[in-house]
Amino acid sequence: MTPHPEQDGFTVWFTGLSGAGKSTLAEMLFHELRRRDMRVELLDGDVVRTNLSKGLGFSREDRDTNILRIGFVANLLTRNGVATIVSAVSPYRDARSECRAQIRDFVEVHVHATVEECARRDVKGLYQKAFAGEIKGFTGVDDPYEPPQSPEIFIDTMVEEPDQSLERILGSLARFGYIADGARLVHEAAEHSGLTDLDGAIGADLAGRHSAAEADDGDAGAAR
Amino acid sequence: MTPHPEQDGFTVWFTGLSGAGKSTLAEMLFHELRRRDMRVELLDGDVVRTNLSKGLGFSREDRDTNILRIGFVANLLTRNGVATIVSAVSPYRDARSECRAQIRDFVEVHVHATVEECARRDVKGLYQKAFAGEIKGFTGVDDPYEPPQSPEIFIDTMVEEPDQSLERILGSLARFGYIADGARLVHEAAEHSGLTDLDGAIGADLAGRHSAAEADDGDAGAAR
Repeated sequence: MTPHPEQDGFTVWFTGLSGAGKSTLAEMLFHELRRRDMRVELLDGDVVRTNLSKGLGFSREDRDTNILRIGFVANLLTRNGVATIVSAVSPYRDARSECRAQIRDFVEVHVHATVEECARRDVKGLYQKAFAGEIKGFTGVDDPYEPPQSPEIFIDTMVEEPDQSLERILGSLARFGYIADGARLVHEAAEHSGLTDLDGAIGADLAGRHSAAEADDGDAGAAR
Repeated sequence: MTPHPEQDGFTVWFTGLSGAGKSTLAEMLFHELRRRDMRVELLDGDVVRTNLSKGLGFSREDRDTNILRIGFVANLLTRNGVATIVSAVSPYRDARSECRAQIRDFVEVHVHATVEECARRDVKGLYQKAFAGEIKGFTGVDDPYEPPQSPEIFIDTMVEEPDQSLERILGSLARFGYIADGARLVHEAAEHSGLTDLDGAIGADLAGRHSAAEADDGDAGAAR
């Protein structure tokens, strides 16, 4: 047991609309960092809603509280040397800025797709419900999404495949000095899980599951 | 940067009445582990209430939710190699057991003093307020405290000085294999901070501040 922390902690914060592809990339990155024997945690919006924010609603104040709680935990992990991945809609700029200020080693990844494209991918029909007014306060439909003004990494999932996006993220993390090797090490996950295949049946199903979970549990909006 | 986690994580969970002496011992332990260059976090009841549990009240359900949130965060830290110290009234046995089951490397420290003794120490008069009915749901007065049935460590702060208690805690942590050296390394803190001098003016003030913070923010009860 050597007590010195040798791994530098950092937070990679994925923000973007429900269905934009945050969870897919976050999960791929998680496996890459694990493969490097790093200490890694993935704080997903829905998991955090369940464990830390049950009872919070979708007012601006409650959304901010939820994001700041994620930031509080991410900071605790980061300052103890953990590579922390956050995947949350986190629609408001101010709340993200507060997290950035607190955590410092903060890599913001804006995962972009238009509302129309996210709605097209939305196999559970949550966007349709939001358009029909059955879900209120849904980010991108009747609640604002404030895009980052200068994210460390911008990903347009409408023109880039997940494989390419992941490679760019790894390259950036290597350039920032957070990982030694920016090359991709995990290939089988992409083949087996279907997570990277957003257009395929499995990928669409998983993407749907992810966006549904996000929408059900908190970040994007909720049935009222 | 070597990526392997070399420090084994564990949680030391201080439970007991407001004013029993949890915060004093938790803080002393924190400094001892820091002196050993370990990664350490101290999750104090009031800090957690502020950052994770604002809005929760003092019903059994809300108290349990608060404790489980602390447990969730303690588990994230512990499994990433952090020595995690929790100081919270945590009055209900079931909630503590759930945290123990989740975290596994769990050292429960029951910090005991009678309600009468805690009330005697209570410079802010919170116990008096509780006795007078101005504070409702105050643990030990009109809300139950369920003592651990087999804590790893039992501390009776009515008969033992903080110095001695700390030495026993360190000895136990060494025996459990969580620290290499069970000897006391920090002596100046006891002399300078006054935290160990519960009967002195500074100690009483600090002890009062701690119990007041706990009571205000959530673990012991609140004015209604």
